[in-house]
Amino acid sequence: MAGNSFGRIFRITTFGESHGKAVGVVLDGVPSKIPISEDEIQRELDRRKPGQSELTTPRSEDDKVEILSGVFDGMTTGTPICMVVYNKNQKSKDYDAVKNLFRPGHADYTYQMKYGIRDYRGGGRSSSRETIGRVCAGAIAKKILKKYNIEIFGYVKQVGYVKGEKLVKDFIENNPVRMGDPEKYKEAYDLILDVKSRGDSVGALVEIIVSGVPVGLGEPVFDRLNAEIGKAILSIPAVKGIEFGAGFSVVEHFGSINNDEITPYGFMTNNAGGTLGGISSGQDIVFRFAVKPPSSILIEKNTIDIMGNPKKIVTEGRHDPCVAPRVVPIAEAMTSIVIVDFMMINKRLEL
Amino acid sequence: MAGNSFGRIFRITTFGESHGKAVGVVLDGVPSKIPISEDEIQRELDRRKPGQSELTTPRSEDDKVEILSGVFDGMTTGTPICMVVYNKNQKSKDYDAVKNLFRPGHADYTYQMKYGIRDYRGGGRSSSRETIGRVCAGAIAKKILKKYNIEIFGYVKQVGYVKGEKLVKDFIENNPVRMGDPEKYKEAYDLILDVKSRGDSVGALVEIIVSGVPVGLGEPVFDRLNAEIGKAILSIPAVKGIEFGAGFSVVEHFGSINNDEITPYGFMTNNAGGTLGGISSGQDIVFRFAVKPPSSILIEKNTIDIMGNPKKIVTEGRHDPCVAPRVVPIAEAMTSIVIVDFMMINKRLEL
Amino acid sequence: MAGNSFGRIFRITTFGESHGKAVGVVLDGVPSKIPISEDEIQRELDRRKPGQSELTTPRSEDDKVEILSGVFDGMTTGTPICMVVYNKNQKSKDYDAVKNLFRPGHADYTYQMKYGIRDYRGGGRSSSRETIGRVCAGAIAKKILKKYNIEIFGYVKQVGYVKGEKLVKDFIENNPVRMGDPEKYKEAYDLILDVKSRGDSVGALVEIIVSGVPVGLGEPVFDRLNAEIGKAILSIPAVKGIEFGAGFSVVEHFGSINNDEITPYGFMTNNAGGTLGGISSGQDIVFRFAVKPPSSILIEKNTIDIMGNPKKIVTEGRHDPCVAPRVVPIAEAMTSIVIVDFMMINKRLEL
Amino acid sequence: MAGNSFGRIFRITTFGESHGKAVGVVLDGVPSKIPISEDEIQRELDRRKPGQSELTTPRSEDDKVEILSGVFDGMTTGTPICMVVYNKNQKSKDYDAVKNLFRPGHADYTYQMKYGIRDYRGGGRSSSRETIGRVCAGAIAKKILKKYNIEIFGYVKQVGYVKGEKLVKDFIENNPVRMGDPEKYKEAYDLILDVKSRGDSVGALVEIIVSGVPVGLGEPVFDRLNAEIGKAILSIPAVKGIEFGAGFSVVEHFGSINNDEITPYGFMTNNAGGTLGGISSGQDIVFRFAVKPPSSILIEKNTIDIMGNPKKIVTEGRHDPCVAPRVVPIAEAMTSIVIVDFMMINKRLEL
Repeated sequence: MAGNSFGRIFRITTFGESHGKAVGVVLDGVPSKIPISEDEIQRELDRRKPGQSELTTPRSEDDKVEILSGVFDGMTTGTPICMVVYNKNQKSKDYDAVKNLFRPGHADYTYQMKYGIRDYRGGGRSSSRETIGRVCAGAIAKKILKKYNIEIFGYVKQVGYVKGEKLVKDFIENNPVRMGDPEKYKEAYDLILDVKSRGDSVGALVEIIVSGVPVGLGEPVFDRLNAEIGKAILSIPAVKGIEFGAGFSVVEHFGSINNDEITPYGFMTNNAGGTLGGISSGQDIVFRFAVKPPSSILIEKNTIDIMGNPKKIVTEGRHDPCVAPRVVPIAEAMTSIVIVDFMMINKRLEL
Repeated sequence: MAGNSFGRIFRITTFGESHGKAVGVVLDGVPSKIPISEDEIQRELDRRKPGQSELTTPRSEDDKVEILSGVFDGMTTGTPICMVVYNKNQKSKDYDAVKNLFRPGHADYTYQMKYGIRDYRGGGRSSSRETIGRVCAGAIAKKILKKYNIEIFGYVKQVGYVKGEKLVKDFIENNPVRMGDPEKYKEAYDLILDVKSRGDSVGALVEIIVSGVPVGLGEPVFDRLNAEIGKAILSIPAVKGIEFGAGFSVVEHFGSINNDEITPYGFMTNNAGGTLGGISSGQDIVFRFAVKPPSSILIEKNTIDIMGNPKKIVTEGRHDPCVAPRVVPIAEAMTSIVIVDFMMINKRLEL
Repeated sequence: MAGNSFGRIFRITTFGESHGKAVGVVLDGVPSKIPISEDEIQRELDRRKPGQSELTTPRSEDDKVEILSGVFDGMTTGTPICMVVYNKNQKSKDYDAVKNLFRPGHADYTYQMKYGIRDYRGGGRSSSRETIGRVCAGAIAKKILKKYNIEIFGYVKQVGYVKGEKLVKDFIENNPVRMGDPEKYKEAYDLILDVKSRGDSVGALVEIIVSGVPVGLGEPVFDRLNAEIGKAILSIPAVKGIEFGAGFSVVEHFGSINNDEITPYGFMTNNAGGTLGGISSGQDIVFRFAVKPPSSILIEKNTIDIMGNPKKIVTEGRHDPCVAPRVVPIAEAMTSIVIVDFMMINKRLEL
Repeated sequence: MAGNSFGRIFRITTFGESHGKAVGVVLDGVPSKIPISEDEIQRELDRRKPGQSELTTPRSEDDKVEILSGVFDGMTTGTPICMVVYNKNQKSKDYDAVKNLFRPGHADYTYQMKYGIRDYRGGGRSSSRETIGRVCAGAIAKKILKKYNIEIFGYVKQVGYVKGEKLVKDFIENNPVRMGDPEKYKEAYDLILDVKSRGDSVGALVEIIVSGVPVGLGEPVFDRLNAEIGKAILSIPAVKGIEFGAGFSVVEHFGSINNDEITPYGFMTNNAGGTLGGISSGQDIVFRFAVKPPSSILIEKNTIDIMGNPKKIVTEGRHDPCVAPRVVPIAEAMTSIVIVDFMMINKRLEL
């Protein structure tokens, strides 16, 4: 129990269900005197909102953030910052039909078994609306990183079988797939539309790159920077795997090619992905994660009802055929929170 | 700081350096009245020790565990169990040559930068000898799992380009590679010997399977079972990635094939890898992780010394050409600790 | 940083400032399927609200709780419960005069020094309005305790020099001082009114008694039941000391009279106050704590302004001359939270 | 469970039983490059050891500390420091008679009820020998405080009815009672000897003073400096109450005398005891705690055996008639650990 907090010194606690009164976050441990406004938070939040293009769900969720505490005269005060987004336009009736059914791939079954009760409307707590709070907190983390000239960005590297190869940073936020490769973007876009037209969904691969990270972040042997990022990313709904640097390709590597040689001018390669022994090396932090195809599809599937009877199910409603474009800001948020947390832990006494 | 503990209710704290007086662990939160002996711990420890075959380092580390506290009359008492292995046969002189050099792929550089000092002998704290404490604690976790009929095992699925396909459980502990596929074992064995003869090293892929896990383990939204396992596994030296169930292949999946359908007789597939919404579903927990080729190789590489001067380095000494066989028990230990921890957290009040 | 959470498995995180938009709490780790309504929370909240009698501040704070998450169809769902009270009727102008002054006895000085900025209106985060969130969470904790037939109550034992001797439980909630002694109540009441008329304030002693606590709560050696209660109570504004059972009188005790003898029918005395070795013994948990006289008084005092210049100050506004009656429900709330947390931790695996 | 750790960034985990193989501590989060030797630790340990005078138990426990990890070339490396004291000269046979009896005032009963098993020899885990680990870790914390010119000391203020009034710092470590008042020392000494001769024991009052503490330590609203110190001190065996500054006398105070006025030259009084709103104010941290008379006495008392039968008991063996002199270094250790932990948490990012 009590699994809704993340971070140690810089810590978030999220709350809220998809169709309840509100979703939100309490961000504790924020340094004081950081200028912050609702507009800044909102900008980040708008990056994850649905309805940004015809690729995402047409729900106009109109997510407006409100800061309830911790900011005074436009500045953080060092006290907990509570940010909420009140839920509007939530059509609970959409979910009456699936009230007693366990949607395949969703958490309906496990929530029901674990808690003996669940808010079935829109997935309740397991809805991706929960991540709104993460993005709000991440906006503040990002602002702190910026002050330290640490840059973080993510992009979609692959959608289904469409693999991006190039990475043009300026292109990412200028296409609805958030692809990094302008040449492959159209193909990915078409694939998603096609999948959507068939009532199906598709998976994707996302890469995050953080540059400017100081040497020394991470607290071995358990709280390694990569391990903590791993937990953060794997806590995002739909993520099924994560790999750092050369990642799974190391399986076929020999040490003689995998070791990153060191020169007076820096490392020659970055197979490690930015950490050595769980501590940042000053190289870019680079990792990728796999996002599964959304479980809500219009294709009929087998399931059971709450009494264990066999049933057929089609998940009606307005859903994303590919969730990766909206996962990018969530993953950036979680990564930023991890890094700020370690920066604060790492402030050592001078002795 | 203080990153050497793992777990919340069932918690380990490891200590010790490769060439210091001892390595060990304090295991706190153990239920009382579990019969436990040093022999049982030792058996598990022997599975990770070097010198088990010509594939592993010939160092006879002679790791003998000693229980210092928490066990009385052969039973746990509910108080912290400290277990130590005193270091012997550690040839510190081996390391004089690399005292001021940063071995590529090792944590020498980041430890030096972070702490301004490091025990350079054998990697000090970043040595894989640190995992001895984990395996000792894991032996007790495994015993608890056994009581609950939860079975956990791991095996090597791939070594370099040699991919195992079959899984014959009884074969795993009967071959020095801990391969699951008897038909591919010889090829993998030969590859490791070949790599060794060239002074090189090779990566591998390990799979862990846990069966009998009750429904309901995991505490969303952050302390998901898969996220916590992810952190645990990524905290093991040399691990560069982890994936659950269908893993990275979901990138190319459509929802219509990826969703695990449910029938009155159970799930029809296990693409999820045993969790839904971060909570165990009762299916097998299945995950794989990538182990990089060991960084200690006899092939000359570029590096710098502590003053930043360019140097050439060869890592002399006795090292494993492929570390995966010995990582298997470590990963089993960490996974067992995560599961027991969640089982204890999950014990809910009846209301 | 990040000091705004309390509890491990059953955990609260409070947020909000006296004159900000709202104060509130996120309560995580609540067992599912507990029936709960805003009315029930409100009842407990009304016990701490100002304006209950002429003894407390006449501000009609009109504190109405709203549940934002975690409750569905009138039942807890096991997900985090966010409860907020929007601030109304807060006259910020009252505080313009003291904007740059450090009120003696208040936290103005230390907040300014620590954070370099502070919300000076009504004490900001250090206001006792912060405890509203604690009382809301405590209402749920109390409901859980009731299910287990654990009874908790507190009362004012002494106000200034007026010492209560008797304890008539039914009288406590029927007098505005929350005194336990009907014979001393009038004297205490008059003292408070007299103090108020002089623009002064007065301290008090509060006792809390918990009965029906099962044997075995508390996790030595650090997380003792008494130590955790101690932290919880000392975290309440204005509390300057706490003692258990015989308390400070043990200083003059001999072991021969202080040891609580044991018989087949139970303990003969309760000098220990309900714990032995930090673990509940099944006896009543009994402790007392000292509440200082409120720092807001109408009597002129020396202080400095934010530039370090000497100033005179009178704390205008509407303040309680004795805060103990309103601290009783806060202390009950914190104690209940500690006990529920330990009950959840204590649910052990059967082996 | 898992209650054997204390601190967040600077964290101790103690282990060991009175008559087991060893007692000890793992101290995690220690800054690197602090020179440290076993001799320094030993000096602090010798202050708590028995047999220092005829007032303490004549057991020559010969407690020799051994550092197992975390120190290299005489310097801390930033990795966990494990320190152990092997138990010697423990006469287990002494305890055979009380094996099945619950000694009044001891934790025998609650440990048995909680864990269903206990190491009955010398109190097992609930023995004050457990505090050896705390003192070892405290020695390192103290060294850090010294670097920052923070001075901490404690002394016995009262023994039974003998109240010290003066405080002569240099006298404290030069008398076996650790009294601060040279004029009352003899009377206290004689009282303890008298009590000892009667086979009885006596309580005491200890005061701790910390000077040089920087403004700003403590993390409201829960992790207040005073609340954390409160928990730390209440976690020491035999402590029944704690008060800060004016302490319980505030009950009878008026605000007009209790508020500490502020001048350009500092605070005029220190009724607060060094914190405001849970944050250090730069004044001395001053607190007192009550130590109960040791429960081991030679006077026959009623108890029950493990089957619930009524029994008579006399606690044979070698015990302290007054434990306060030996508690002083333990309380200093715990307080030092709390302060260093907050100093490390308080290191804020510059923004």
